[in-house]
Amino acid sequence: MNAIPTLLNRKPLPESLLLALGQLLGTRLSTSASVREHHGSDISSLGPVPPDAVAFVESLEEIISVSSLCHAHDVPMIPYGSGTSLEGWLQAVQGGVCIDVSGMNQIIQIRPDDMDVTVQPGVTRKQLNAALHGTGLFFPIDPGADASLGGMASTRASGTNAVRYGTMRENVLGMTAVLADGRVIQTGGRARKSSAGYDLTHLLVGSGGTLATFAELTVKLHPLPEAVSAAICTFPSVDHAVQAVIQTIQLGVPIARIELIDALTVRAINAYSKTSLREAPSLFFELHGSESGVKEQIETVRLVADEHGGQDFEWAVNPEDRTRLWQARHDAYFASVALRPGCRSLTTDSVVPISRLAECIEATAADLEENGLLAPIFGHVGDGNFHALILVDPDNADEVARAEAVAHRLAERAIAYEGSCTGEHGIGLTKRDYMAVEHGQNAVDVMRSIKHALDPKGLMNPGKIFG
Amino acid sequence: MNAIPTLLNRKPLPESLLLALGQLLGTRLSTSASVREHHGSDISSLGPVPPDAVAFVESLEEIISVSSLCHAHDVPMIPYGSGTSLEGWLQAVQGGVCIDVSGMNQIIQIRPDDMDVTVQPGVTRKQLNAALHGTGLFFPIDPGADASLGGMASTRASGTNAVRYGTMRENVLGMTAVLADGRVIQTGGRARKSSAGYDLTHLLVGSGGTLATFAELTVKLHPLPEAVSAAICTFPSVDHAVQAVIQTIQLGVPIARIELIDALTVRAINAYSKTSLREAPSLFFELHGSESGVKEQIETVRLVADEHGGQDFEWAVNPEDRTRLWQARHDAYFASVALRPGCRSLTTDSVVPISRLAECIEATAADLEENGLLAPIFGHVGDGNFHALILVDPDNADEVARAEAVAHRLAERAIAYEGSCTGEHGIGLTKRDYMAVEHGQNAVDVMRSIKHALDPKGLMNPGKIFG
Repeated sequence: MNAIPTLLNRKPLPESLLLALGQLLGTRLSTSASVREHHGSDISSLGPVPPDAVAFVESLEEIISVSSLCHAHDVPMIPYGSGTSLEGWLQAVQGGVCIDVSGMNQIIQIRPDDMDVTVQPGVTRKQLNAALHGTGLFFPIDPGADASLGGMASTRASGTNAVRYGTMRENVLGMTAVLADGRVIQTGGRARKSSAGYDLTHLLVGSGGTLATFAELTVKLHPLPEAVSAAICTFPSVDHAVQAVIQTIQLGVPIARIELIDALTVRAINAYSKTSLREAPSLFFELHGSESGVKEQIETVRLVADEHGGQDFEWAVNPEDRTRLWQARHDAYFASVALRPGCRSLTTDSVVPISRLAECIEATAADLEENGLLAPIFGHVGDGNFHALILVDPDNADEVARAEAVAHRLAERAIAYEGSCTGEHGIGLTKRDYMAVEHGQNAVDVMRSIKHALDPKGLMNPGKIFG
Repeated sequence: MNAIPTLLNRKPLPESLLLALGQLLGTRLSTSASVREHHGSDISSLGPVPPDAVAFVESLEEIISVSSLCHAHDVPMIPYGSGTSLEGWLQAVQGGVCIDVSGMNQIIQIRPDDMDVTVQPGVTRKQLNAALHGTGLFFPIDPGADASLGGMASTRASGTNAVRYGTMRENVLGMTAVLADGRVIQTGGRARKSSAGYDLTHLLVGSGGTLATFAELTVKLHPLPEAVSAAICTFPSVDHAVQAVIQTIQLGVPIARIELIDALTVRAINAYSKTSLREAPSLFFELHGSESGVKEQIETVRLVADEHGGQDFEWAVNPEDRTRLWQARHDAYFASVALRPGCRSLTTDSVVPISRLAECIEATAADLEENGLLAPIFGHVGDGNFHALILVDPDNADEVARAEAVAHRLAERAIAYEGSCTGEHGIGLTKRDYMAVEHGQNAVDVMRSIKHALDPKGLMNPGKIFG
């Protein structure tokens, strides 16, 4: 929907580069229109901007060779994992070569004693968890889509489990990455901590392909909980629900997931999934621990919910009942979109300190209503992160403009509340104008100087993060 | 003990700079020999290398002014907190102005709902915890010394609680920092997560004053546990103890502290504290949780210990008994030094993946013995981090050389085991030669290029981290 600022005088790829890439990759170099179009788009509502070619690499050595060749020819490079990012991370606004690492999907080594694993960047989170079967360990980060770990590191992804297990920021221990000029760096390591020099791992996590192409990642694993239980509860208002969450966390209950859905989302779910949940702001809990620990957590959660006007408290221990309870939350996205057939959704991604969350959601809901927009709201309330799915008719320019204006005010509101315009999707193309608002011009200048230090020609995923 | 590589032709500070700093700070600018000597040393065994002047700043504005003046005069700056760092972070090897922020010790705002606090950099961890009294929250990071939070962020400090609560890396949410040229940057924020741009907070944490002077920090707080209990247990070998730790962590027991002390350290403690503990490798546990949760943790820990040959299992719940149990661990440092009156200790700081920990400790103990050196070993076993306190006669050059050779081999061994030469003290002056060994030359080049991008004149704490 947004206009994508592409380079006007895109030059075609130099013949000598195409020749060299073809010699290197054979049929794994593609310039077909459909492959390029597919690789020039993400799952946002932005249209595709195809790269000039797609290189399906299969090894570190191939990433090095492709990078060195593109660097020698001053041609942009865009790393590509599973294509499930949002915010325009993959659109080739200055053309260039898309480096598709999805074929690098080997799990290199699982180390149960150290609770870590080294993977190639194309390994997806579901693939990894399947491979961990029988080890007693799991990889908790769950952004919804079955994203690649390289891509998740790239956008600093998180999702529903982050309140307990952290985001990619906390879970990537180290990386092998290829710089624009083909130099390989190793960052971090396998020790759980280190004070040796600058933290390049955290610099790369969240850099969205603008600093390097990730070739290998070592991530933390976590013990599978002995027991899991789930609970849901409705509240008189978003504020009541949020206050219950704040108190639960302050009591030290190690909640694994705590999700808020608003009344409109419940209505959408009831229509979509033929349920009859009370149409009120609701919290979905998932609790991990020992058998007795989880029971105790449930009791605490229930007491806290009661204190804050919670109703319809329901909890479940066995897997079928838990799945049934959480099905509503899992259905939230598709149920929301189904509220308005033919619509497209403009998804927001604000995060604020939890003390400001209710205020931020309520102000946003009021803004949406004033502008006659339909937008279910749900999110990762333990982190202060929520998404409004603004449902718009893509052919109604006025409505699209109103939706974008609400999303704009929401991003600025989140920043004004000492939060961020993006909790887990990243800046990409669409949020570049907020960088200086959120960080201040000096910090953005410092980021740019780091970008320039690592990629002086500006070839890595150009046009992203910085305006 | 090590020779400190100082600049040979140190120029005196320009008169115009001294004049301007004097006008700015009055009596808070000091050039007295004793103040300079004090500020040119840390608590390592390295001798002092005094700066040319010490600026006792009291505000962000004063840091900006001092930095701008030094920058205009091409004079080095060395940020100073509580002076409790190790590894030669404070020695003014190229002269310059020490920026002492210890007077910036205001706790700016405690926010119980968001479980965070904003402090000036001179606030110490004990001061912060005293101020948190009554909030139900605490700041867990405990490196032993009552260090300033600015200094702890600077060295990426951790300590005994890190296995559960993380290090400074995981606990700093955001910062205000002053660059070499006086520019102020804000990094991070108060949201629990964000995907907006590069992670400058993590770049600054651990940078040891080489990139910026910290002027303000926002850190996470944690709920005080409802119940705390402690336990100790001896094992037939270090390997048995480490295997018990691995299993405990894999079972998901959320241990708050888990410390290993070797047999020699126990002997030292028995002599120093008149105790009669079995002289065997021992684990000290601290468990945080609900009343019943802690009981359950104790039972699990005991079962696991039994399985690995644990003996003399003792546990305590009430504060006096817990203190008595842990006293031995708290005495470890002074008891160790007292093993050899008149000695100085050369302290190592290796960290390895936990699966390699027993092997690494045992190889180190053998190396120490072969070289006729006395060195109690203890550490934060949950993180794979341990310290050997090599006790040497500073007047015995041969012994000092043997100790340094063992420490050198240990650092290289830790790196060979995919660990790090420093878990929590940092590189400083003493470990610069390991940077390329541990990270590879390309990664060190990237770190240098970032240093150059932020501090092109090389004025921030010069000579540290990079050789």
